[in-house]
Amino acid sequence: MTIETIEGGHATTPQGFYAGAVCAGMYASGPKAGGFDLGILYSDRDCTSGGVLTQNMVRSAPVYVNERRFPAGNIRGVITNSGNANAPFGEAGIAEAAEMAGLGARKAGAPDEQFAVCSTGVTGVLIPMEKIRAGVPQINATRDGGPDFATAIMTTDTVSKQVAVAVKDGDRVLYTVGGCCKGSGMIHPNMATMLAYVTTDANVERSFMRTVVREVADSTFNMVTVDGDTSCSDTLLAMANGASGVEVIEAGTPAAAQFKAALLDVCTQLSRKLARDGEGASHLVTVSVTGAQDEATARNVAKTVALSSLVKTAVAGNDPNWGRILVAAGRSGSPVEPTRTSVSLQGEVLFDRGKVLPFDEYALHELMKQEEVVIAIDLGSGSASATAWGCDLTTEYVHINADYRT
Amino acid sequence: MTIETIEGGHATTPQGFYAGAVCAGMYASGPKAGGFDLGILYSDRDCTSGGVLTQNMVRSAPVYVNERRFPAGNIRGVITNSGNANAPFGEAGIAEAAEMAGLGARKAGAPDEQFAVCSTGVTGVLIPMEKIRAGVPQINATRDGGPDFATAIMTTDTVSKQVAVAVKDGDRVLYTVGGCCKGSGMIHPNMATMLAYVTTDANVERSFMRTVVREVADSTFNMVTVDGDTSCSDTLLAMANGASGVEVIEAGTPAAAQFKAALLDVCTQLSRKLARDGEGASHLVTVSVTGAQDEATARNVAKTVALSSLVKTAVAGNDPNWGRILVAAGRSGSPVEPTRTSVSLQGEVLFDRGKVLPFDEYALHELMKQEEVVIAIDLGSGSASATAWGCDLTTEYVHINADYRT
Repeated sequence: MTIETIEGGHATTPQGFYAGAVCAGMYASGPKAGGFDLGILYSDRDCTSGGVLTQNMVRSAPVYVNERRFPAGNIRGVITNSGNANAPFGEAGIAEAAEMAGLGARKAGAPDEQFAVCSTGVTGVLIPMEKIRAGVPQINATRDGGPDFATAIMTTDTVSKQVAVAVKDGDRVLYTVGGCCKGSGMIHPNMATMLAYVTTDANVERSFMRTVVREVADSTFNMVTVDGDTSCSDTLLAMANGASGVEVIEAGTPAAAQFKAALLDVCTQLSRKLARDGEGASHLVTVSVTGAQDEATARNVAKTVALSSLVKTAVAGNDPNWGRILVAAGRSGSPVEPTRTSVSLQGEVLFDRGKVLPFDEYALHELMKQEEVVIAIDLGSGSASATAWGCDLTTEYVHINADYRT
Repeated sequence: MTIETIEGGHATTPQGFYAGAVCAGMYASGPKAGGFDLGILYSDRDCTSGGVLTQNMVRSAPVYVNERRFPAGNIRGVITNSGNANAPFGEAGIAEAAEMAGLGARKAGAPDEQFAVCSTGVTGVLIPMEKIRAGVPQINATRDGGPDFATAIMTTDTVSKQVAVAVKDGDRVLYTVGGCCKGSGMIHPNMATMLAYVTTDANVERSFMRTVVREVADSTFNMVTVDGDTSCSDTLLAMANGASGVEVIEAGTPAAAQFKAALLDVCTQLSRKLARDGEGASHLVTVSVTGAQDEATARNVAKTVALSSLVKTAVAGNDPNWGRILVAAGRSGSPVEPTRTSVSLQGEVLFDRGKVLPFDEYALHELMKQEEVVIAIDLGSGSASATAWGCDLTTEYVHINADYRT
């Protein structure tokens, strides 16, 4: 069996999924680029689902609604707006989030409790429900509405982020997995990155679905960092509707391993898109850690290096400043022994188990101008590994966030 | 008894301390602003001392020398260069650091093991010892050399940072406490901030000195954050030489409480200067947390908010974006319950135990243009408190660190 990326694939590539979007006028300053600010994505039949929510102690109102519904593992759709996070941070907003989910459910012909709701945008401002109420009836959800939906959930994102893969047996497509997500600031998921939705027409047993989504989130979305700030709205939702007609996929089978690989592929592609489109980013930064004594160490070191402001600014300047990489690894709190550790940048080894190697600084500076900068760290003390994705820190990030409201 | 700041005070304000500096040519690109790049600070007699060193797993060579000497609590001087951190990260550099300490000790007429050594600047490059060897004999250490020494330890700092206070009984000065420090990037001390030296002519019992320095570091230098990157060289060294002639200060006495208050005053003043001069900073940001269930919670919340890129960029834009403050508090991992929490900015309460309060956005925007922005968070769940100091995140920070080497 093989996994192939589908050119132009998106969240409604899998059979039985529908999506649509409108401009409901959620942005006070006028329609945002692309126009859409309210969207819906749903399956035309029951689903098994898995989902994870922000670990932030301060949460937006939709999170309170979703946390009550996700455990049942039967979510089949989601309604989402951009321009307002519905995060007034008190008791306020929760009734509005529930009402909004209900509007989505009726639109999709689904029971209320099988619908999720997400909002993203400014915090601390009550959501204008009259615009949501007026907007929902105007949405025309179709089988090819995935791209419009992916646009509707964008905030400071510069591109929409979507992908689909086909799982094939020879030439025959068994099922497909699609998805979309949005960033692009307040990104340091301690669950998932702000909003990410994955759809599949595979037929997946419910408890396996819940488990596999969490596992995949830990090695994909939870390994992305843009600025170290965990959002109050982070949500990953994956829905499987079985519309492909394949047999039910149960835990512990070869089909389960195959499905996990496809899910991992989709979530990795979305995670990379997210990091690459981090606010103000000019580079995708991939930090690959090997030789760790355990996976927790590998993940912690990878994420700490990806988050380091000094590493990120060095990448912005195409500066092969490997010393900052090593020092950031050292402050991770995980065991890092310089005399066992090696550091390479764009494939060139610069520090080898305690020794500084000579290198052509100008040539490497030029090589760092590529869109993706790859930092590889071998800790020399085990066989565990992990990858984190981040981006560089540019003056544009500061401009975006210093001028966001005023 | 009272504590008074001495106008123009510095590290050699306390009796019996000497300092001096030269330009040894440590910067390949030519002398840095101010000229000095190698300095020495020492007492003319024995000291009791306390010190704390970086917790980074990756450490510069001088840290390896100091960690062997600090436990004895008898350090009476330090030699320091800027322009090179002596951090080649292997076995290399340690012999050089020891040699450098020895050069300082002989200059000061002190035993080798009573001398400390620090280096700050670029990492990953061997230190040019011939310049140190040539420079030390040219240093002329005097009783008023504190300011020159404070200049010699600067790297990207824009101002030298020094202070002294007098502890008085009525009009009579009992003793003085002075100090200096340098920042200004890679500042998120997990001990102290890069380099800080405190001197006093008080007579302090050795084991109390060790203890009190650590306690004061935890609530001052360890509560400063510029960019979340912990340096490999962080060092705080405090030396007490008894030259004032006051009686020995023992733990548990009123004099000990007084000495701790003076030390806290000096370290707080230095910490604030450090944060205010954070790379690219245009504001000092003071985050004060009250009502926490315990001190660890208060510290963690204060430091997390001070570190938040989104809070820091909002301050750069004079944007009263209290939602980001609350969300940053929420991701600290400590218990933060929005319905109990209040947030104020420049003295104005914006969020009160779950309720958003109306405020004049323009007026507060104007008020945030002051040099110091004060964020106050009341967690409403206890009586512990803590203060953290940071700075805003500006495009200048990115310029400084993207262009540091290339």
